[in-house]
Amino acid sequence: MATNLIRRGHQVTAFDINLQVLERFAAAGGMAAGTLRDSARGKGLYVCMVASAAQLDQVMFQGETPLVDCLERGATFLVTSTVAASDVARLEERFRVVGRGDILLVDCPVSGGAKRAADGTLSIMAAGSKKALQSAMEVLSEMADPSKLFFPGEIGQGSNLKMVHQVLADVQIVANSEAFAFASYLGLDLYEVRNAVLDPSSGAGSWMFENRSLRTIEHKPIPPESSLNLVVKDTAIITETALYHRFPVPLCSAAEQAGLLGRLHGFGPDDDGTLARMYCPHFEPPGMSSVKLIQDTTEKAYALHMILSILIGIHTVAVAEALSFAHCLGLDLQMVIELVNMSAGTSSAFSEHSVGMVQKLQAGDLDVGDANPLEPLRTALALALSRARSINCPLLVANAALDVITEVERSGRSNGRGLWITDLVLYYR
Amino acid sequence: MATNLIRRGHQVTAFDINLQVLERFAAAGGMAAGTLRDSARGKGLYVCMVASAAQLDQVMFQGETPLVDCLERGATFLVTSTVAASDVARLEERFRVVGRGDILLVDCPVSGGAKRAADGTLSIMAAGSKKALQSAMEVLSEMADPSKLFFPGEIGQGSNLKMVHQVLADVQIVANSEAFAFASYLGLDLYEVRNAVLDPSSGAGSWMFENRSLRTIEHKPIPPESSLNLVVKDTAIITETALYHRFPVPLCSAAEQAGLLGRLHGFGPDDDGTLARMYCPHFEPPGMSSVKLIQDTTEKAYALHMILSILIGIHTVAVAEALSFAHCLGLDLQMVIELVNMSAGTSSAFSEHSVGMVQKLQAGDLDVGDANPLEPLRTALALALSRARSINCPLLVANAALDVITEVERSGRSNGRGLWITDLVLYYR
Repeated sequence: MATNLIRRGHQVTAFDINLQVLERFAAAGGMAAGTLRDSARGKGLYVCMVASAAQLDQVMFQGETPLVDCLERGATFLVTSTVAASDVARLEERFRVVGRGDILLVDCPVSGGAKRAADGTLSIMAAGSKKALQSAMEVLSEMADPSKLFFPGEIGQGSNLKMVHQVLADVQIVANSEAFAFASYLGLDLYEVRNAVLDPSSGAGSWMFENRSLRTIEHKPIPPESSLNLVVKDTAIITETALYHRFPVPLCSAAEQAGLLGRLHGFGPDDDGTLARMYCPHFEPPGMSSVKLIQDTTEKAYALHMILSILIGIHTVAVAEALSFAHCLGLDLQMVIELVNMSAGTSSAFSEHSVGMVQKLQAGDLDVGDANPLEPLRTALALALSRARSINCPLLVANAALDVITEVERSGRSNGRGLWITDLVLYYR
Repeated sequence: MATNLIRRGHQVTAFDINLQVLERFAAAGGMAAGTLRDSARGKGLYVCMVASAAQLDQVMFQGETPLVDCLERGATFLVTSTVAASDVARLEERFRVVGRGDILLVDCPVSGGAKRAADGTLSIMAAGSKKALQSAMEVLSEMADPSKLFFPGEIGQGSNLKMVHQVLADVQIVANSEAFAFASYLGLDLYEVRNAVLDPSSGAGSWMFENRSLRTIEHKPIPPESSLNLVVKDTAIITETALYHRFPVPLCSAAEQAGLLGRLHGFGPDDDGTLARMYCPHFEPPGMSSVKLIQDTTEKAYALHMILSILIGIHTVAVAEALSFAHCLGLDLQMVIELVNMSAGTSSAFSEHSVGMVQKLQAGDLDVGDANPLEPLRTALALALSRARSINCPLLVANAALDVITEVERSGRSNGRGLWITDLVLYYR
């Protein structure tokens, strides 16, 4: 991020606890600061990128030169870390308490990875006061792709917008592993599974599946593209924020439990795409597995259909969970759709159902139908889960998805009407 | 069971694939049959006790001398196995199809263990036609405690009644392990945890906790009093029957996933009380654990409070799940209460809330309040789960319980009223 700003003609001073990173930055033309204090002295704008709320607290308020004492009066301060909205709100409050209400805080988590950071084409969700955003606008524009710069509102809403997107991303990461574990139990060729899912007509695809599936199949836990520990960190932000808002997130909660169990197995530092090993003891790289592959064509087609059903079921309920949560948080739902459509949380299910679900959430009239009955989705998922049970294959998130669907169906039946896929938001009403 | 009948003066012929069992039976005065056919020849009443629906199918219809061909015309046939209602219904249908509609089928699963079987004081849930029940009455009375002989209705309702009880039993078995695993993470003395739960004023007790807690603490996986594999077998009956009736059982479903993951860890044949090892890598017998115990009195009291909150939260939602499922299945809810109160599924939460929940289910008027607000239950559970998350302790069933409570609270709030504990049945309406 810093080097990109240099390339775009800005003078940038930076500090990092990793000296090699600092040296690379200096070689690219940046000013390497020797201490945190030096990096802030005389600067009107400061971008802070740490990994967690705990680190943010440490950098801002602890140690010999806490950053809060180093920032210039009236400086604009950008928090680009992925933290909970409550963490940023607490930071703002604490600025006031310690007499630094002059700092113009911007809650602006980023998304897109190292390459897009270097290119200045990140997605950025920037929230804060008008004055703070105006002051940060130039540098935000340099770091973000113009079509991927969002302004969701007040302090906290930047983090909330990123978090809602993360509901989809994290659930889909675990779904990827559940699908491959189940496929392995069933005796499917995992490459064939991948091709079946990636076929655009499958309806089961997701950005995460496209991105993670090869690593999952080929067992590339190290180096992690993105670690399981990061998933556990992000789901905790979601479930804790949901707790605070008294909002149910059963799917994300199940994904979190899967992640925690994966950590117990020692997979925390590994690539999140390889969590399938937690679900399946004989999950092995192609060619090494002792499982006999299905030969019969009909049987294989049905097994593949079950894998698609698992993914479609999870992805579809995840759309309802994420959008309903966004609605509960007061986010602009059109903005959520726009963000997800161009980000890692997107899926076929999202493309298909997000607009209808948002209509249902916004209309308040929950009795409106749509073109897609819920019944086939439920039946396909139920049959797949029944088969999984018969072969002792655990599927935490898929079973949680079925519970949501079943609850919605019961309440709908008690109202004496048919149900559509968009009715899944009823669970979260 | 057979030896008990001999002692009570009946002539009993029996067959078993285990020859030692047969010899013991003969030594006690029974007639040991050499083959399945011999055991049925000339008998007006036959009691079949196998372990699963698959074994029932095998014994009845497969092999050289399938039992269906050996039974006398008009014989009374008692299925005492724990199977799904649909399995017994299928058996009845198949009798008709193969021209054996003359057989008087009794669906009568039993409960109570080997000692009560030998004493003739089992709990028996006997269902079937009036004629079949009349014909079986004498032998049922000899095998069951008179106060524990239930007649829930038509074929299938015996299995359904036992299954509903099993929802409570299985969820509480897993709850026992979640509580001890969490206690171990927190650094509590597990004997102190046990004493705190067993204190009648805790509200967190259950028959299962009383029965399993010492085995859990002292790591006695072998010989199993009752194996984890049996839990997985029983939860599958519940979740499959729930699927069929399109009924949501999120708590039991989470317990099933925990059981399946325990199997993957190789704990299937072990005592179900020791599933805590799946949740906690450092779960070790007292004296061997490397975890530092909490010394601070206040901290310890709060940690113990969290363990109680986990158990109370799970047990209370389990009562709503089991009773609502019983209601969905058309069972007599007073009979369910009576059965549970004298069986392994009982708990403090059941004693406290079952009558109120049944009133709410039967009244149809779901807007009636009770003396216990839902709020404190929810808050205590949420705080405990938040703490568990912060120390990376997975708690599958407890999190599922919170999701149920949160969903009920949201729908209640959207109706603009306060919520009581009995309102938990709203989730399953």
